[in-house]
This record gives sequence, C-alpha cells and structure tokens, in this order.
Amino acid sequence: MPQYKAPLRDMRFLLNEVFDFEGHFKSLPNGEEASPDMVDAILEGCATFCEEVLAPLNLPGDLEGCTLKDGEVTTPKGFKEAYAEYVAGGWQGLSHPKEYGGQELPMSLNLLKAEMMGTANWSFTMYPGLSLGCMNTVFQFGSTEQKATYMPPLVSGEWTGTMCLTEPQCGTDLGQVKTKAEPQPDGSFKLTGTKIFISSGEHDLAENIIHIVLARLPDAPKGTRGISLFIVPKFLVNKDGSVGERNAVRAGALEHKMGIRASATCVMNFDGATGYMIAEPNKGLEAMFTFMNTARIGTAVQGLAHAELSYQGSLPYAKERRSMRALSGKKDADHPNDALIWHADVRRMLLTQRAVAEGARAMIYEAAKLADHMVAGVATGDQAKYEAYDDKLGFYTPILKGFITEMGLECANLGMQVFGGHGYIKEHGMEQIARDARIATLYEGTTGIQALDLLGRKTLLQSRGKCIFNFTNEMIALAKPHLLDGDAVGAMARASFKRALEWKWITVKIMLRANKDRDVVSAACYDFLMYAGFAMMGHFWLKQAIVAKQKLAQGGKESKEFYTAKLQTAEFFFERLAPRANAHKKTMLSSTRSIMQMDNEHFSFV
Amino acid sequence: MPQYKAPLRDMRFLLNEVFDFEGHFKSLPNGEEASPDMVDAILEGCATFCEEVLAPLNLPGDLEGCTLKDGEVTTPKGFKEAYAEYVAGGWQGLSHPKEYGGQELPMSLNLLKAEMMGTANWSFTMYPGLSLGCMNTVFQFGSTEQKATYMPPLVSGEWTGTMCLTEPQCGTDLGQVKTKAEPQPDGSFKLTGTKIFISSGEHDLAENIIHIVLARLPDAPKGTRGISLFIVPKFLVNKDGSVGERNAVRAGALEHKMGIRASATCVMNFDGATGYMIAEPNKGLEAMFTFMNTARIGTAVQGLAHAELSYQGSLPYAKERRSMRALSGKKDADHPNDALIWHADVRRMLLTQRAVAEGARAMIYEAAKLADHMVAGVATGDQAKYEAYDDKLGFYTPILKGFITEMGLECANLGMQVFGGHGYIKEHGMEQIARDARIATLYEGTTGIQALDLLGRKTLLQSRGKCIFNFTNEMIALAKPHLLDGDAVGAMARASFKRALEWKWITVKIMLRANKDRDVVSAACYDFLMYAGFAMMGHFWLKQAIVAKQKLAQGGKESKEFYTAKLQTAEFFFERLAPRANAHKKTMLSSTRSIMQMDNEHFSFV
Repeated sequence: MPQYKAPLRDMRFLLNEVFDFEGHFKSLPNGEEASPDMVDAILEGCATFCEEVLAPLNLPGDLEGCTLKDGEVTTPKGFKEAYAEYVAGGWQGLSHPKEYGGQELPMSLNLLKAEMMGTANWSFTMYPGLSLGCMNTVFQFGSTEQKATYMPPLVSGEWTGTMCLTEPQCGTDLGQVKTKAEPQPDGSFKLTGTKIFISSGEHDLAENIIHIVLARLPDAPKGTRGISLFIVPKFLVNKDGSVGERNAVRAGALEHKMGIRASATCVMNFDGATGYMIAEPNKGLEAMFTFMNTARIGTAVQGLAHAELSYQGSLPYAKERRSMRALSGKKDADHPNDALIWHADVRRMLLTQRAVAEGARAMIYEAAKLADHMVAGVATGDQAKYEAYDDKLGFYTPILKGFITEMGLECANLGMQVFGGHGYIKEHGMEQIARDARIATLYEGTTGIQALDLLGRKTLLQSRGKCIFNFTNEMIALAKPHLLDGDAVGAMARASFKRALEWKWITVKIMLRANKDRDVVSAACYDFLMYAGFAMMGHFWLKQAIVAKQKLAQGGKESKEFYTAKLQTAEFFFERLAPRANAHKKTMLSSTRSIMQMDNEHFSFV
Repeated sequence: MPQYKAPLRDMRFLLNEVFDFEGHFKSLPNGEEASPDMVDAILEGCATFCEEVLAPLNLPGDLEGCTLKDGEVTTPKGFKEAYAEYVAGGWQGLSHPKEYGGQELPMSLNLLKAEMMGTANWSFTMYPGLSLGCMNTVFQFGSTEQKATYMPPLVSGEWTGTMCLTEPQCGTDLGQVKTKAEPQPDGSFKLTGTKIFISSGEHDLAENIIHIVLARLPDAPKGTRGISLFIVPKFLVNKDGSVGERNAVRAGALEHKMGIRASATCVMNFDGATGYMIAEPNKGLEAMFTFMNTARIGTAVQGLAHAELSYQGSLPYAKERRSMRALSGKKDADHPNDALIWHADVRRMLLTQRAVAEGARAMIYEAAKLADHMVAGVATGDQAKYEAYDDKLGFYTPILKGFITEMGLECANLGMQVFGGHGYIKEHGMEQIARDARIATLYEGTTGIQALDLLGRKTLLQSRGKCIFNFTNEMIALAKPHLLDGDAVGAMARASFKRALEWKWITVKIMLRANKDRDVVSAACYDFLMYAGFAMMGHFWLKQAIVAKQKLAQGGKESKEFYTAKLQTAEFFFERLAPRANAHKKTMLSSTRSIMQMDNEHFSFV
C-alpha cells in the first residue's frame, strides 16, 4: 500500500529554484504575507495533515464507500473527524478574502495544498474542493447580501458547496438543461428538476450545503443563452446567519462508481426548492465558465496526484520484491534473484511515472503563477490584467487537464504493472489508484472536449494560432542558449527547439486544412492535444534540467544527488517519452477520410 | 449496458474468406468432421448460449462476486445453472479425444468458442477455461491410469481443473517455488504449502476439482531444475471413479480483485494433501511450459474479447446519445444536437476499438490454425511437426498475448470514454469491461515478460532473428503484388512492405547492440513488442483488405457494405494506429543510458 509522503524536496525545487515563487509572491497585491517562512510553514503543516490524517483514510474509504439512507449520506469512517480537523486548521480559507475570514494568501498556495491533499486522498479532497467553485461564483457574482450570508461559513469550511450542472440528458451540452426556476413574489425562485453526477451533493461533513444550480427561467430563450444561475441551500439561512428550514433539494440516489468511492456522487432532486438568482438572468453559463479554467486545472492536479501516488507505491515494491536475475548479471549476490528495480523494463515503468509526475508538477506550478496574476486582476479591479492572464491560463488549461489526466491514468496502470498480479488485488492499494484516476479524463470536460477546446477554440477561433506561436517562442527562447551545449542538456535543448518549430508548422498546416474541411479540427484534436502535452512537458523538463545543471556546476555537495537524478529523469523524458509526439504528429496530419468515410450504419454487422 | 451479439459475420469472413478454414480442416487428421455445416452449427449454437445464457450474467456476476464461507466458495447467482447447461451441451470436450468422451474437433474451434464465451462473460469462462491446462497436462504426461481416472470427467466438464503455480514469494520466478511433496510408501505424495492467485481453485460448479501443482521433492535441486508436477484432487477418487474422501487442500481466502469478480481467485492451502506425480521428477516446469503457448493465446483472446465488447457497448450509445453539433454542420436537423457518432473524435474512438478487435481476431485465428497443426503433430506422434508448429506458435504467442491485451485494455478505456461520465457508473457495464480487461496484461506473464520472451528468448537466443525474418518475409510476400495498386490497398501494401524492411533492420541493429550491452534487451523489449504488434496487425489488416477488395471487384450486391466497411477500417488502422510503431522504434533504439544510469537510491528524495 502506498505510504504517502509529500514530495517537499521536489516542490521546493520548483518553488524556489525553478520558478522563483518568492519573487513572484512579492509581485502580487496579496503576496506580502507569503514569506518564505510562511510558505514553508504551510507546506510542512499541510504535509503532516495529509500524511498522518488523510492518507490512512484512503484505502479504507474506498472499501467502505458512502451510503445513502433516508436522504442522508454517510461518509466513510474517519472522514468526519478529518474534515473537522481540516476546518479547525483553517485550511479551507487559505486563499480567500480576509473580509470573509480567509487568509487571503495567493491562489497558488491553495493549489499546492490541493496537490498534497489530493495525492493523499482524492475522494476526501473533493468535499472541500467542490466548495471552491461555489465560493468563486458567490464572490464574483453574488450581491453584497449573498456574499455576507454565504461566504463566511463557506470560507471557514463549516459549510460546503456544489456545482449542479449535469442533467440526465446533457453533460457537455449544457444548452439542453431543463431544470426550471419559477419566480416567486418575494424575489426568490422555486427550482424543479433533476441533476446528476453532483459531487458532494449530500454528505455528513458540514452543517449546510450550498448548491450552485443551472436552471431556466420560464421565458428563457432556448439553448445556452437561456440559462441562469441560482444559489440553492440545503438548509435555508435565517436572518442571523444560522441554519434554518430544510429546503426541498434532496439526494435521490448515490451513483455506484468505478472509483473515488468515498466521494459522494449524488442524483439531486429539486422539488420546488427555494433558490436565489446569482449573476444576471440568462447569463448563467457565462458566469459558470468564468471559473472553468481554475476548476479544470484543479482536475489536472488529479493526474499529477495519481502519477505521484502510483510512483510512491510501486518504487518501494520494486526495491523489495525479487524476481529472476537482471539481464546484465547478478546484482544481489546474496539472493537467488534480483530486486525488480534492477530490470530495465521495470525501471522504464518507474521512470515514466516519475518523469510524468515531476513534469506535470512543473506545468501546474507555472499555471498556478498565472492564476495568481489572474486573481490579482480581479482583486484590484484590473479587468485588462484579469483578461490577459485568464487568456494565458486558458491556453494551458486544456493541455494540463487533458494531457496530464491521460498520463496520470497511464502511470496508475504502470504502478499496478510493477506489482504484477499483486497489483490487481485490492489490499495493495494500487488498483484503487487506477480506478480513482479513471474519472479524471471524463469529468470537467472529457479529453475530447479539452482537445476541441485547445485546437478549435483557443488555437483556431480565438487566436488564429497565436497562443501556439507565443508558447513555442517561449520554448525557443529557453532552448536557444543551450543548443550548442555538449552534454545531455544540449541534446534536450535541441529536441525542444526542433519540437517548437515543428509545432508552429503543424499548427499552420492544420489551420489551412481546417479552412477547407471543418472535420479536420475534430479529427485531429486529440492528437494535437497529446502532441501539445509532450511538447509542453518537454519545455518544463528542459527548464528543470537547466537549473539542475547550473546547481551542479556551482558545486557543493548539498543536493548533488537530487540534481543528478533530476537531469537523468529529464534525459529519460526526452529519450523515452517525447518521441510519442512523433506518432501524434503523423496521425493528426493524415486525412480525415479514414475517420469520416464510414457510413454510420456500417460500423457494425452483428 | 453492452448486449453481446456474437460477430458471426466477421468470424465467417475470416474463417471462410480470409483463411480458408474448410481447406485447413481437411488437412488435419481430426478435421474430417469439421465440415462447414458442423462448424456453422457450432458457431450458431455457441452464439446462442453466449448471448442468452452467459451475457446476462456478466454484470450481475460482477456486482455479486464470489463468497467464501467455511472453505466453500459460492459463485454468483445463475452461474451454477449456466455451467450445468454448458456441460449438458457437451461444450467442454469440443476438441478433446473421443477416447475420453470428447468430440475431437480441431483445437481452433475451441478457441472460437472461447472467444464468444469470453466476450459474453470472461469471469464465467475462466471456470471451464482453467480445466484446459489441467486436461492438456494429464493427457500429455499422465500415466494410462491417471488418464483413465481424470480425463473423462474433466472432458465432460463434470469436474474442473486448476493450475497451481504461483506462491506468495514468486510468480514469474517459479524456480523459487517452496511447496513440498513428500513421498509416501504407497507411491503417492503429501503436499504442503501455499499457492496464491489460483483461478477456480474452489467453487460450487463441479463435483470435483483437479489441481495440477508445482512442488519440490525433498532431495530436489535448487531452482527451476528441482520442480515436479503433481495431481492433487479436491476429493480423492475411488477405484470405480466415483468421488471419495475430501483431500487436505482448501481455499484459505478469496482474493479481492479489481475485476473478474465472478471468477473465484483463491489462496489454496495444501496441508499434507495427497498428490500423485505426473511427468518425470524435477521436470515439472518443462512439462508445465509445454502448454504455455496455448494458455497464453487463450489470454490474448481476452484482449480481443474486451475490445469487441467495449465496441458493442459504445457503438449503440454513440448512435443514440446526442451532444452538440458536428463541426461540419447540422446532421440531425430535427434535434437541437447531433448524435455522438457524428463527431470525428468519437468516430476515432469507435474505429480504434473496431480496428483492434477485428485485427486481433485475424491474428488469433492465424495462431489457431498453427495450434491445430501442433495438436495434429501430438496426435499423430509426429514430433518434428509438433516442434515446428510449436516454434512457429511460440513466435506469435508473446506478440498476441502482450500486444492484444494491452490494446484490449486501451479499447475498454475508450469504450468508457465514449460514454463520458456515464462510463464511470457501474450500471452501464462499461467500467466493468475496463476492470476485467486490466488483469489480462498481468496474468499468464506480464506484458514485460512477454516482451522479454519475444525479444530475448524467441528472437535473440533461440533464432538469432530468424523468427522475425521469416515473418517479415511473409509480410513482404503479401504486400508485393499490391505495391503499385493505385487505391487504398496499394497504400496499405506499401506501408506494410516498408514496415517489414524496417523491422528486419531494427532487429539486426538490436541484435548487434545486445552483444555489447545485455541491458539493451530489457530496455528495448517493451517497445519491440508493441512495434511487433502494430506491424503484425498491419499485415493481417492488409490480408483482410485484399480479400475485401477482391470480393468487391467480383461485384454482386451481397455484403458490399460489409466489404466496404472492412476496407475503410483497414485504412483507419494504417492511417491512425500504425504510426504509433514509429514512436516505439525511436524509443527502443535510444540508448540504455537514460534507463540504467540512475542510482537505485536516487529514484526518490521524499
């Protein structure tokens, strides 16, 4: 069973050595308090909470799952106490305004917290995690009164929140939402309808649950332009802020899922439930999409989390478990066979997990910096700044969410594979990682939706390729000074440089083709996304390798082993993982015919 | 939920049009009775049994699982009745000698049966499936008396069998087996030890269970050369063949697994259990490996089964479920959105499943023909023939087992992906396929073990590349007449031709490198295996495409649509899947340094 330890050395390498978060925090209006000491205290405190409280609940939580009885959901044993400790520690309001009781630290620290919590116990992390979307919505679009009512208990964590979007007939296609909201004389609304897949829709961790619900007014236009947003509390709130009458929103069922079994995924029935409009009528979907980027990056973290956890699970096993002799000869002479880690094919699997986890971490931390600036734009009322950073983040989002969750699933499967048949057995905890990881490529927009967003929306429609050209210029700028280096970094720089040029060229080629054939976008998008992921991960591996090389050149024994291994992992990435981009290039540039020509009725003859 | 329908049209295409099984059967000593009518009757009868009896038990069987109480295992509701029907239908002895009550039909028909049964319900199929290894062992190595005692009830299916190899400390590395066998004055042995992961080790379907057990004699040499093979029946058998006294072998626990939950995977405790030696002392492992090829091809079928079933599940969903508009414009004008199947990225996922299932089926049927000849060699006492075909099958085996099960898992995941979030919910049955498929890359030798077998054993040690050169010559011979064709088949032929030449060249290159650096084999083997899989599947897609083209050229309306779709699927394979071999080529040819250089202690710094 994986024994989670927060990878603080690697996190600090990125924070302090690669990305200069200290300088970054100083540039933020709310960064003053994020001193190195404060950041360290948060990292250490969160790590202890995750390792000692959350991680031990992960496997038992999966085995027990949630239960629904008479409309009440019971979470697995220990979750309630752990959540109380989370609230008591003030963890929920880490990045939320002081006005509502938060600590108002940069959003990126919240993402580091989510990384550690999510790796230790993804199911648990979803309960406070879903509150974020709710809080963001109330904070950005709520009236003064709504904010005063709902923000303080959400920020403290005493209440949690949900996002109620999906209905049985639509998930991605939210223009088809049917839930009705009928205006009442007192200005409130009565909501009627069914929402499905509502994470944390009902549970026993908090005294109230605040649902953010997409619904239609009676006179609403059809489609996406007729959707409004409502606050629907589980318990209505009294004037003094205390919890009042039970509202007519109830969990009708719990979904039986492949994984994240300790996270309560509910069918929520709204039977004339009292709700309050938030944001403007018929502009609910726009409001909802405001925080899509951050929500999706929160899901990208799941890919990182499961790559990291599967690595932490399979590495000790590979060191302990013995089987056969290494091909290059006896390694453990005092045993009849060698540890798995001596076998090259096992090393390949381990290093894949490591390269993905550490590459993904760097990608996510870069996005976290952008999110900090975006939030600063909101906080200081600087709309242009907000939009500029939201756009930039919007480019990273589908790549991070789509690519990292796909790779996280692959790594979770490799973690099982290192265990051989034992990986398939529940008690080792490795198969749980694969089941938990499986949801990440489905929710918050499937990989296909991320891919369409990247190629169709961000690249073609919104920027005519500019987002790719900008990023590939960054790749080139990083690689250029190292092109002639005679060492491994030089080889990596040349690979990244070539990849950047190739990516520009591919983008232009696809843009030209898409002008003539619209199906090109949907036919090529998945490969374009995966290509982008390998290219971007390569860039962030090069960034890490350059720093590691500099640190080694500076001499000193401190962390020499760490930097050496960092360089070796970077080399592994470029030699053994990056070439996959070549296959994606080839397939995305093949004609749409092989995908589109088959008659729908000829897909099967059974 | 997938509603399994046996893909008889595709099976018949391969049997009759691509591979000429009618002629093949005529060339076999036991092929006489396998007339086209007989084969048809078997296909139809088996299809009905699978569709009507086995398929409906698949999802409920997963939900219920098996239970162990007081040493007795209860299988899910309906399994007992279904198994009784299977026995009554005479299905178990399809390919076993008439002498013992079987029908003595070619082994390939048994594989077709296994394909249909396994697709309908893999867990169920494992109960009779495990008997095969047991029967093969008794038949090949048993004394006349042993055969007379055990074969008839095994062939009828009234009894089932197991293979007890794995122990807690070893799976792959069977030289480490510790179970002891002490000789008794009466010529029998007392076996003591623990075996794990024993499929069908205990259950309520049959009146007796015959375990084939690897164990060590007291004076046995260490390692693989000191292992003997024993028959250990659950109930000792009386002289008249009736079931007698309970033997001291019991299920100590049931494993809690990710999937195949209706298959009882047992920890078996042998507490001085009575056993009878089979085959020569200390040559148990060799005997065991005799049927390794057929057992592994039986597992390759699982990859085919899960690709097929996930396709059968996701295709109707893609036709019914609607979301958004297709990028190339409105398709279903009377709806606000289009069916999923209109979206190119969804078609990509569907066609991947189809191309893998139909490509894998062709690969497996080719291997089935080889198995028929191998069995004919055994039956006619023609050792040279047996060895020649076993060698040939031995080349196919790791590719089929390794590559097809990896692709089956990928397809099972794509099937879930087509369903979006609904794919994650148990009631739809798609996540079960992914969980069930996950074991296939682990048992019967992990993918890594198959890869080592292919590159290290079959290619380098045993044949100095000859197995690859022979197969690539077949690829060239098939492609050559079509190199100048101006249509899609021409493009496929050129691609397959180039691949064959490239594969030869890669093999030579790796052979030369491996002479200097033994780690090359383990570092390259996974990519070599996957490369081999794509190359071989391409060959069998070309074979199918050539036939489809000929049939279309012959005119006639019959099956025009079928052949057209076949050609289109072949084209999809070459354009969208085959290029992945390029990435495998690149990584396998990169140096071993990036895999081997990291110090074992520097894999982690947490």
